[in-house]
Amino acid sequence: MNIPRTSFPRIVIIGGGFAGISLAKKLSKQEVQVVLLDKHNYHTFQPLLYQVSTGGLEPDSIAYPIRKILKNYTNFHFRLAHVEEIKPLTNEVSTDIGTLKFDYLVIASGSETNYFGNSVIEKHSMAMKSIPQSLNLRSLILENFEEALLTSDLNERNALMNFVIVGAGPTGVELAGALAEIKKGILPKDYPDLDTRSVQINLIQSSDRILKEMSENASKKAEVFLENLGVNIWKNVRVTNYNGKTVTTNSDLTFETATLIWAAGVKGATIKGLDSEAFINRGNRIIVNEFSQIKGCNNIFAIGDVACMESEDFPNGFPMMAQPAIQQGQHLGNNLLRLIEQKPMTPFLYKDKGAMATIGRNKAVVDLKHFKFQGVFAWYVWMFVHLFFLIGFRNRVVVFINWVYNYIRFDREARLIIRPYKKNLKE
Amino acid sequence: MNIPRTSFPRIVIIGGGFAGISLAKKLSKQEVQVVLLDKHNYHTFQPLLYQVSTGGLEPDSIAYPIRKILKNYTNFHFRLAHVEEIKPLTNEVSTDIGTLKFDYLVIASGSETNYFGNSVIEKHSMAMKSIPQSLNLRSLILENFEEALLTSDLNERNALMNFVIVGAGPTGVELAGALAEIKKGILPKDYPDLDTRSVQINLIQSSDRILKEMSENASKKAEVFLENLGVNIWKNVRVTNYNGKTVTTNSDLTFETATLIWAAGVKGATIKGLDSEAFINRGNRIIVNEFSQIKGCNNIFAIGDVACMESEDFPNGFPMMAQPAIQQGQHLGNNLLRLIEQKPMTPFLYKDKGAMATIGRNKAVVDLKHFKFQGVFAWYVWMFVHLFFLIGFRNRVVVFINWVYNYIRFDREARLIIRPYKKNLKE
Repeated sequence: MNIPRTSFPRIVIIGGGFAGISLAKKLSKQEVQVVLLDKHNYHTFQPLLYQVSTGGLEPDSIAYPIRKILKNYTNFHFRLAHVEEIKPLTNEVSTDIGTLKFDYLVIASGSETNYFGNSVIEKHSMAMKSIPQSLNLRSLILENFEEALLTSDLNERNALMNFVIVGAGPTGVELAGALAEIKKGILPKDYPDLDTRSVQINLIQSSDRILKEMSENASKKAEVFLENLGVNIWKNVRVTNYNGKTVTTNSDLTFETATLIWAAGVKGATIKGLDSEAFINRGNRIIVNEFSQIKGCNNIFAIGDVACMESEDFPNGFPMMAQPAIQQGQHLGNNLLRLIEQKPMTPFLYKDKGAMATIGRNKAVVDLKHFKFQGVFAWYVWMFVHLFFLIGFRNRVVVFINWVYNYIRFDREARLIIRPYKKNLKE
Repeated sequence: MNIPRTSFPRIVIIGGGFAGISLAKKLSKQEVQVVLLDKHNYHTFQPLLYQVSTGGLEPDSIAYPIRKILKNYTNFHFRLAHVEEIKPLTNEVSTDIGTLKFDYLVIASGSETNYFGNSVIEKHSMAMKSIPQSLNLRSLILENFEEALLTSDLNERNALMNFVIVGAGPTGVELAGALAEIKKGILPKDYPDLDTRSVQINLIQSSDRILKEMSENASKKAEVFLENLGVNIWKNVRVTNYNGKTVTTNSDLTFETATLIWAAGVKGATIKGLDSEAFINRGNRIIVNEFSQIKGCNNIFAIGDVACMESEDFPNGFPMMAQPAIQQGQHLGNNLLRLIEQKPMTPFLYKDKGAMATIGRNKAVVDLKHFKFQGVFAWYVWMFVHLFFLIGFRNRVVVFINWVYNYIRFDREARLIIRPYKKNLKE
């Protein structure tokens, strides 16, 4: 990779998610050369992916060009690259566009869907971790309804109108809520030929409550909200397989469905070279110390979802969400500058800002440290926080207008099959 | 296709473009059953596709769900279908989702890119007739710049930064203007490592003026505007081939480029069964009489781009653009109702509302019947007219905000490679 060496130390960051971007921002105007690598040319605001899948938002509104984030920084280089291997011994990363030497390396490659080794489920189910995946899911949902119109086989039609979501974390819950609102507000008008009352939304959770990372109150209230919207919640049920038609579980329960959405877990998106058992723990995350440093590597760090920094409050690492990633990125930025100046690094301290999830119109649950609340006010807080953290003024305005419009009109206009998922049209 | 027969006559419309939708609207609340078939589930506002390609607009903003357009109409059915054949003798259409009987059939299938039989150009060039195609072009343009960064071969880098547009109609001219603005306003900031001054935009036209369907004044002024923006205009040059690397022409002139955009012509998107020489003329358009009726078929009509209705002022049919399509759709709606009531049909009279094209910031050319003007005011008129004809309140607001933002910030934020065109990532 032809990036000229300067007299400044070179910091290579893998990944332009929350962690990578917040680190890059900290390093601007400093005497370092920064190279950011990502396989996409944009940063994705993952918390709103479910709205892209359900036609509430346009994909471009929750993405932001990485080059634009970096454009006023000096000594910054972005490369669209897929990192294939890290070579800690020679301080190199290999990518699909060549090899790059580093002085410091920061792995911020995020997480990917965890199928827990079940390749059959992986093959037949839909995931929602990236914009293309979310658009695939959007296409599939809409294509299913178009197909349901065509069949006279009642079982087939029901399977096409049955949505099974595995995993009742924030993603699963928010998606279930959005689908339930579509069932109520949009489907009867869009498909007058179909009996859309038979649309089923099944949310399956292996443990005994939904949103299990949040407070008991949040779980209970979210459950009530979802049930009022007509979502079927199945707790203490573990999905064992899905062959594209039938979902089997650890009980007698089965589901006939054309759409299984797998939101049951994520794992660290580790990279060859630092993915051996010596480096990773449960959840496939790279073990790091309180300075985000990887075991045995003084100049290699991991932050965000891919990193597992154990602490007293979080013995299995911090939750895999935006806040720890942003905070670790900022903190590591300062530490890297200290390290370069040969000052001692400071340990990372996580400031838990809480968690939240929205269930639908006027309904959300919010857990702050000292204040937990649910309902309309929580919904406003949810919207405000999401707008605030979205990168880019234009994105904020466009998302806000879409929300206002969708709220007033009970509508989601982006229900477009831009790229068919099932059919392959030549164009 | 299981659409129940009612006592009303069934009108089948092929295509949800300007012509098909304006016809459908006319037929609402009438005693007819309408079935609209389209291979996309959305209507595309084609005049703004070039802005999607150049990152100025999000694809969803210029598309509108067809089911939403039809949602308050009774006796309307939409089916997502690719029409394979028309059988005039048995009054049937065959599609990929089954066969459908009709009482009246209206072909509004629009137009497709015309490569004039050159399959080599077709294989290597980019077209811009649909949203997926426009997104492919957007991805390719951005991928080229990313690739230009990586090569140390000067010829290869120049080819990656050389954009050749064939055909200087409104599409070619508007695209060239947009690319020139990107070169000036965005590339130097996004690619500080590249010498973006070597980006070339070549616009090739086989005749002796650009925008040849418009007035001489419009052509001249558009040419000045483009030249001031740094676009190289080549008139009286005919492209003979493009092998993916070199563009050859009917003169000694050749171009080394990684991107050829083919905007040199369109032809009617005819359908098997009515595509024999007896039915079509030059430009592959179906010949219709003044009632939009196809020769020898009393109950089969064609409107919009696919139809060629000869008239004194337009001996080769009306221009293939939105206005004739919209007017023919509306007119045919009235005529079909008259036909059903056994009243005589009225001949179509085209109201020429003129033509316009924008070249870039503050620059457009407008030809009205009695008033032709160019410059800033023309640019405002262009924007107003395009916003007015865009379907959907939300789309209008979002497009307007994007335009205001892009104008103030000299920016185009949607420069995202959502689906890579060259690389194939697994997701």
